[in-house]
Amino acid sequence: MRVYDIIEKKRDNKNLNEEEIKYIIKEYVSGKIPDYQMSAFLMAVYFNGMNEEECFNFAKSMLNSGEKMDLTSIPGIKVDKHSTGGVGDKTTLIVVPIVAACGVKVAKMSGRGLGYTGGTVDKLESIPGVNVSLSMEKFFEIVKSIGCSVVSQTGNLVPADKKIYALRDVTATVESKPLVASSIMSKKIASGADCILLDVKTGKGAFMKTLDDAVELSKIMVKIGKNFGRKVMAVITDMNSPLGNAVGNSLEVWESCEVLKGGGPEDLKKVSVYLAANMLYMAEKGTLEDCITLANEVINNGKAYEKFKEMISAQGGDLSSFDNFETLGKDDVCYEIISEKEGYVSSIDAEKLGKASMILGVGRLKKEDSIDYKAGIILYKKIGDKVEKGDVLAALYSSKTEKCKCAEEIIKEAVVLSHEKVKVAPLIHAKVTDQGVEKF
Amino acid sequence: MRVYDIIEKKRDNKNLNEEEIKYIIKEYVSGKIPDYQMSAFLMAVYFNGMNEEECFNFAKSMLNSGEKMDLTSIPGIKVDKHSTGGVGDKTTLIVVPIVAACGVKVAKMSGRGLGYTGGTVDKLESIPGVNVSLSMEKFFEIVKSIGCSVVSQTGNLVPADKKIYALRDVTATVESKPLVASSIMSKKIASGADCILLDVKTGKGAFMKTLDDAVELSKIMVKIGKNFGRKVMAVITDMNSPLGNAVGNSLEVWESCEVLKGGGPEDLKKVSVYLAANMLYMAEKGTLEDCITLANEVINNGKAYEKFKEMISAQGGDLSSFDNFETLGKDDVCYEIISEKEGYVSSIDAEKLGKASMILGVGRLKKEDSIDYKAGIILYKKIGDKVEKGDVLAALYSSKTEKCKCAEEIIKEAVVLSHEKVKVAPLIHAKVTDQGVEKF
Repeated sequence: MRVYDIIEKKRDNKNLNEEEIKYIIKEYVSGKIPDYQMSAFLMAVYFNGMNEEECFNFAKSMLNSGEKMDLTSIPGIKVDKHSTGGVGDKTTLIVVPIVAACGVKVAKMSGRGLGYTGGTVDKLESIPGVNVSLSMEKFFEIVKSIGCSVVSQTGNLVPADKKIYALRDVTATVESKPLVASSIMSKKIASGADCILLDVKTGKGAFMKTLDDAVELSKIMVKIGKNFGRKVMAVITDMNSPLGNAVGNSLEVWESCEVLKGGGPEDLKKVSVYLAANMLYMAEKGTLEDCITLANEVINNGKAYEKFKEMISAQGGDLSSFDNFETLGKDDVCYEIISEKEGYVSSIDAEKLGKASMILGVGRLKKEDSIDYKAGIILYKKIGDKVEKGDVLAALYSSKTEKCKCAEEIIKEAVVLSHEKVKVAPLIHAKVTDQGVEKF
Repeated sequence: MRVYDIIEKKRDNKNLNEEEIKYIIKEYVSGKIPDYQMSAFLMAVYFNGMNEEECFNFAKSMLNSGEKMDLTSIPGIKVDKHSTGGVGDKTTLIVVPIVAACGVKVAKMSGRGLGYTGGTVDKLESIPGVNVSLSMEKFFEIVKSIGCSVVSQTGNLVPADKKIYALRDVTATVESKPLVASSIMSKKIASGADCILLDVKTGKGAFMKTLDDAVELSKIMVKIGKNFGRKVMAVITDMNSPLGNAVGNSLEVWESCEVLKGGGPEDLKKVSVYLAANMLYMAEKGTLEDCITLANEVINNGKAYEKFKEMISAQGGDLSSFDNFETLGKDDVCYEIISEKEGYVSSIDAEKLGKASMILGVGRLKKEDSIDYKAGIILYKKIGDKVEKGDVLAALYSSKTEKCKCAEEIIKEAVVLSHEKVKVAPLIHAKVTDQGVEKF
């Protein structure tokens, strides 16, 4: 077998068989195939795609490049979730305790953020004392006793994906649905859960700009999961404007606590409950309606927040400072953006808001960058809200006033006012299962 | 400027400006852009192509990476030719002396063969004593005094093309018309001639399998040439079956001498005269009809062959052994392929014949391989010919009988007989100039 022939075959839009895909991934990881041949191959995949079988084989070969988590020692059905990433997306922090409080186990590995979409691990690390780098034994012990744990990736899972992603990142081959789907699914399968809920974001602040793109990506991922014998479902949620009001690590933990305590922004609560309910539904906790009721119950009776506190405490952290907005670890410099006009908020560009949050210090541009856990944005106005001249649109938290001034310009561009009240876009666009696509 | 953005732009089918093309080529040649980014870029070009302006800028940036030949010290109009390569294509050996014998200067640099298409330099080197690595001074001196000289590439012309071609060769990005056109034209422009005749081969044994592909490639090359202010014309000739009867280095030199002496195979003579006449036409030697008459005249009066002998002699070579088929330096093992059937030759697959010639030792698979100048094939039957059972189809020359036996199988597959006499395909399919395409 020659790598040249495999590149040529994909270039000529022919389907690759299992052996060929196995060969190119294995030999690339071992260093026998050079970067320049792999990048030409990846660009050919960008243009000609991969069919269901190729995607499955691609994910499988990547999966087989490393260790796999074996969760069988944890009793019961284990569920996992994955979000394709968005601005202000803190649903994992809310969904995991809800699901665990309902008696379904979640052993979750999360990533750090890169660019303007945050990472759950970074958010957790803004909590004093919390440890996200637990040993495998400790991680399993917490899931068994408390019902959930969220850690940063442990073990040598899917090294092929790491190496291939690093190459895609510098060769403009990230934006390929079969490659995105194989990458995500190989990591989710390696994480060992029985059921996987995918939260695929769509809109201006998401990787998938249109609903059609999001549906296509979801279909590929659901099929890959099915071929691995896992229960997989994708919920397509809106990311035209940010989710909730808070953007920034400690601010998002605070907002998550608010939702778990029965408060917080409506949009965030609605999406979180819907995601949690679908995870419970996959874990056979009843009909979807039953599961929605169940999820709301554990919020209202305080069990979900209690579960979150237990989990954080088991991982060495202390949530007490998050009980009060004034005592949570936010930056001191608070800068308010005042509206110079009146009208109704017609759109809030999530991508621009994400970029503004980067300027404030929320995220990292390069892997090596350090981040400011205390920096961030609180939106006071959301889509549909009436704004009077002089109203506060948002508060900015940062270590330096200059950073706030730079961010202000971008946020003013991001928040668009109109004369008439606009209809608020739906939060949940569609659901994709192996039975088909249901649009809302 | 970032290479990532340039890759992405081409991937998204946007046109690159002059600065971007200059940047990617310059930085790649200097080693600042790694192979893996260049190969992703080349694959994006494979899929999305380049427009007229991009091709010109690509060729120009490659051209500017090295030295350029300055032929202005040689008086008069200088013409050049280039063939995209084919099996048995020895036209340069015939065309160059014809054109020079008609008073038009040819300072030609040729390449060596790779794969089953031969190279003029290899053919010349089968002539005892000949030197194809002349100094620039000697090369110019011969062109000035005799009117023509053919050497292997001298000086550091278009190093960017060398580096980029080596990468394309291992990443399945050779077969891209804008890249092929830019590669050929950058070298032709660097060679300094005022007029350039392109012989674009089409058919089974050619790089361009269909006439449409050949026309498209020709159009791009003619436009690049025009943008450089050179006179460029492309003649599209047939390469479904090999040109002439001889395949192999010394055998092809012998056949070329035969044509120059007024004999030789009709197809080879016709194509050679047509190419030579078009070069004379570009050099303003009269109408195309006048130029065809002129070319035939110098064959008939012996001046063309005389010119060839003069040129070879000036380059240190001796053609005397080529006067007689028996004394030319061919391999001793002669193996005749006998027809087991009767019928009319309906096709001779040039590509298969080329591969058979490779087995005999005619060409090289890798640059480092040595070749057997004396090996080759003489076809005794051509398309349209009647074949009786027991007739000799071809004679094979090689250093070993076993090689002949292997080649025999392939040649028997290549030569197809039919019950009825077939129409011989035209030798010259089309002519492409900046005025348009003329199909015959």
